[in-house]
Amino acid sequence: MSEGKVTKEELLKKAMIWKEIALKLHDFYKGKLMVLPKCAIESYDDFAWIYTPGVAEPCRKINENTENVWRYTNRWNYVAVVSDGSRVLGLGNIGPEAGLPVMEGKAVLFKYLGGVDAFPLVTNAKTADEMVQFLKWIEPNFGAINLEDIEKPKCFDVLERARKELNICVWHDDQQGTATVVYAGLKNALKIVGKKLNEVKIVFFGFGAANKKNADVLILGGAKPGNIVIVDRHGVLGPHRDDVKGTYKEWWAHNTNSEGVRGDLSDALKGADVLIAMSKPGPGVIKKEDIKVMNDDAIVFACANPIPEIWPWEAKEAGARIVATGRSDFPNQVNNSLGFPAIFRGALDVMARTITDEMCIAAGDALAKFAEEKGIHEDHIIPRMDEWEVFPYEAAAAAMQSIKQGVARIKTTWEEEYERAKMIIRQSQDMVNLLIKHGLVQHIPEDIRRIYHKTK
Amino acid sequence: MSEGKVTKEELLKKAMIWKEIALKLHDFYKGKLMVLPKCAIESYDDFAWIYTPGVAEPCRKINENTENVWRYTNRWNYVAVVSDGSRVLGLGNIGPEAGLPVMEGKAVLFKYLGGVDAFPLVTNAKTADEMVQFLKWIEPNFGAINLEDIEKPKCFDVLERARKELNICVWHDDQQGTATVVYAGLKNALKIVGKKLNEVKIVFFGFGAANKKNADVLILGGAKPGNIVIVDRHGVLGPHRDDVKGTYKEWWAHNTNSEGVRGDLSDALKGADVLIAMSKPGPGVIKKEDIKVMNDDAIVFACANPIPEIWPWEAKEAGARIVATGRSDFPNQVNNSLGFPAIFRGALDVMARTITDEMCIAAGDALAKFAEEKGIHEDHIIPRMDEWEVFPYEAAAAAMQSIKQGVARIKTTWEEEYERAKMIIRQSQDMVNLLIKHGLVQHIPEDIRRIYHKTK
Repeated sequence: MSEGKVTKEELLKKAMIWKEIALKLHDFYKGKLMVLPKCAIESYDDFAWIYTPGVAEPCRKINENTENVWRYTNRWNYVAVVSDGSRVLGLGNIGPEAGLPVMEGKAVLFKYLGGVDAFPLVTNAKTADEMVQFLKWIEPNFGAINLEDIEKPKCFDVLERARKELNICVWHDDQQGTATVVYAGLKNALKIVGKKLNEVKIVFFGFGAANKKNADVLILGGAKPGNIVIVDRHGVLGPHRDDVKGTYKEWWAHNTNSEGVRGDLSDALKGADVLIAMSKPGPGVIKKEDIKVMNDDAIVFACANPIPEIWPWEAKEAGARIVATGRSDFPNQVNNSLGFPAIFRGALDVMARTITDEMCIAAGDALAKFAEEKGIHEDHIIPRMDEWEVFPYEAAAAAMQSIKQGVARIKTTWEEEYERAKMIIRQSQDMVNLLIKHGLVQHIPEDIRRIYHKTK
Repeated sequence: MSEGKVTKEELLKKAMIWKEIALKLHDFYKGKLMVLPKCAIESYDDFAWIYTPGVAEPCRKINENTENVWRYTNRWNYVAVVSDGSRVLGLGNIGPEAGLPVMEGKAVLFKYLGGVDAFPLVTNAKTADEMVQFLKWIEPNFGAINLEDIEKPKCFDVLERARKELNICVWHDDQQGTATVVYAGLKNALKIVGKKLNEVKIVFFGFGAANKKNADVLILGGAKPGNIVIVDRHGVLGPHRDDVKGTYKEWWAHNTNSEGVRGDLSDALKGADVLIAMSKPGPGVIKKEDIKVMNDDAIVFACANPIPEIWPWEAKEAGARIVATGRSDFPNQVNNSLGFPAIFRGALDVMARTITDEMCIAAGDALAKFAEEKGIHEDHIIPRMDEWEVFPYEAAAAAMQSIKQGVARIKTTWEEEYERAKMIIRQSQDMVNLLIKHGLVQHIPEDIRRIYHKTK
C-alpha cells in the first residue's frame, strides 16, 4: 500500500465506488440502526414488570433519589449523537436531515467498537443558545452527549457552555476525538525518530476546530507553546495578525511562535520537526519544496479528506520520515474511531461527569502503548481499527484518569474496567454476528458485494 | 377469573409482588432497551459505506431532496417517546428521570408488538411552549412522536399545537390510544346487548385527558352528544356549571346532556346504557346502588388503575351485563397496548403526516372485528394483548384510512400493508427470541422467576 503510488484520479474513482456502494446499501437497509429490548420477554406476563403495574416501583425509587436512574434504566449507556448538520464531512451546511446518515453511522461505530447505545438526534436547533438549551432539555435521558459535525465557531461555544452547564459528559468528536489519536500517533512517531514532545518544533497548518484541539492536547501532553507555529489561510499567526483580534485565534497569536516567524507555510516549516495539517483536500496543497526545508526525521500528518494535502510518497521523497493521513488505504491512519468508542466506554462505566483533556491523553497513551508493544515502525505508529483489543485498554485508562481527577461518580479498578469493557464490546459484536448468521439482519446482496473488489 | 371474587387487599398484595419483581429485574438488567446496527458488518471494510467516505453520498442525495431521508435512513421507523414526567402512572409529577423506566417499557412494547424503533426522550422542557419547541427541534430525526404521561391541561395544548406545527405524527397515548381501545370494546359490547352507538345514553365519569378523547372518538364513531352526560368531581356538566368557564370542559357543558340532568353520578346514571369511568382508584368510588338505576343490559367500563372504581362482580350483581376494567387479571382489559403499536406501524408504513381520530376509529373497527370473528361474549369483547395476530389488521386499517384522508406520503394496498406489518412485527419478536436463546439477552434469574407464581 505505502509503496504503491496512486493518482488523485484513482483515489477519487475509488471514493466514487464507495459512494455507489453506500447509496445502494443505504437504500437496501433503509437505515443502519434499530432499537431492541435488552430484557427477556418469554411470556406476556413479563409486561407486568416491564410496564404496568410493576414499573411504578423503579419510578418511585428514582423519584426518592434521582441517582437511582443510573441503576434502574439504561441511561448509564445512552449517548446522544447530536448534530445540526451545519458542517457535515466535506459537504458543508446540509441541514439536519441530510446529516442523519452520518449520525446513524457514528452510532453503529459506537455500538460495534464500544458497546455504547448511541442514538442519533439531528436537530433544528440552530444558534449556540438553542443548541445548549436543547442539550439541557435532553440531559435527563443520557449518560453522555457526542456533538458531531457542527460548524465553528458555534461548536466551540456549544462545547464550552454545555460542559459547564450539564452534569454529564459532552464531547465534540471533531475536536477531542481527533486530538486523542493525533497525540497517540505523534507520541510513537517521536519515539521512532528519537525526539521529545517538549523539544520539537510543531507547525499546525489549518486552524479549525480539529487543529485547535490538537494544539490544546499536545500542549497538555508536554509540547511547548513557544515551539508551536500556526498557519492559517492568511499565513503565520503572531502578534502582528490584527485580523484575528476577538476570535479564538487571538490567544494563539500571542502565545505561540516565540521566534516571531512571519510569512506562509514554507516559512513556518523551516527547521520544523512536525507538521500537523488539517486544512483542505489536496494533493498539492502542501508542496514537496515545503517539506524539504523541515528538520531531519520530519513527521508529517496530512489529514485532509478525502485526499491528503500532499501524497505520502511525495512527502517521503522530500525527506519526511513518517507520514500519517486520514485514509485507511495508506499507512498510519489518523482515525477517530480509534478514540471515541473506547473513551466513552470508560467514561460511561464510571459515570463520569465530564471527559477531560487529561482523559484523552490517558486514552492516547494507552493507544500508543498498545501499538508499541505490537511493534512500531515508520508505517505503523498507531493501531488499525480492526485491532479492537486495544479498546478495553483505552477504556480502562480513561476511566482511571476520570477517577483520579474526581469527575467519576463511581470507583472501580483498572482490572475491573478492562474486563467489563472487553465483555460489553464483545457482547455487542456477538449480537450483530448472531443476527446476521440467522438472517434477521440481512447479508449484503451478492451483486453489491461484488463491487467491493473494485476498491482494492 | 371473572367468577373469583378478590379483595382489594389481595389485589394490592399482587401489585406489591409485581413491584418487587420489577425492582429486582430493573436492577438486574440495568435498563430495558438497547441500540443495535441493523446492517451487516462482516468486515472492517464495511465501515467505508456505513461511515466515511461512502456515507457522503446518501447525505448528498438527502440534501438535494429532503424527502430522501425516508429512503436512506431509519427515520421512517423512529418514534420518540417523549415525557416530562409530570403525570406518571398513579405517581403524579415525579420528573423526567423517574419517568424513564416507563418510557423504556413503552419502547419495548412498541418494538415487540409493533416492530417500531421507539426511543425514550425524557426531557427538562417544562411549559407547553418549551415542549412544543422541543418537539420541533427533534422533528427531523423521527417518523412520529408519542407523548406520554404529561399532565393536563398542558397535554392538550402540546398535542394540539404540535399536531398543527409539525409535519409528522404526534400522538398522546393517554388520549388517542385509550380512546381506540374503548371504542373497539364498546362497539362489541353493544353488539352483544343489541344496542346502537347512535342511540345509547352514555355517562362519562371523570373527565381528564383520557375520557375527553373517549368522548371525541365515540362521537366521531356515531354517539350523539345530546345523549352524553359527563360527571366530574363537582357533579354533572351542564350550562349551569359556571366553574368550567374558560376551560376545555366549557364546550362539553353546553353541548352534551340534552335532558338537562343535574346532580351527581347517581342522577346521571338513571336510565343510562353505558358508563365509561376513568376517575380515581376504588373500590367503592362507584357503588352498587349507582349501577342499579342504569338501563337493562348496562355496560360498565371501570378503568381506574390499579383498582377499578367498582369490582366487576359487584357491578354485575347490581345488574350490569358487561364489565371492562384496566386490569389484565379480569376479563375485558382496556389495554392501550392493543392500540398504539399497530396504529404507529400503519402510520409509519405510509409515512403519515398525522394520526387522525378517524385512523383510530379504523383501527378500533379492525380490533373489534378481529375479536368478533374469534367469537365475542360478555367476558371477551376485545382481544387480549397476546393475540398479536390482530396487530397487522389494525395497522393495515389505519394505513388505508390515512391514505383515504390524504395524510399519507405514500400509497399502498391493504394486502401489502398487512403482509409488511406482519413481517416487521414477527421479525422483531424473532430477534428478541434469538438473542435470549443464545444467552446474549439474559434469562430472568430463576429465583426471581419463582416469585411469579405468587401473582397467580
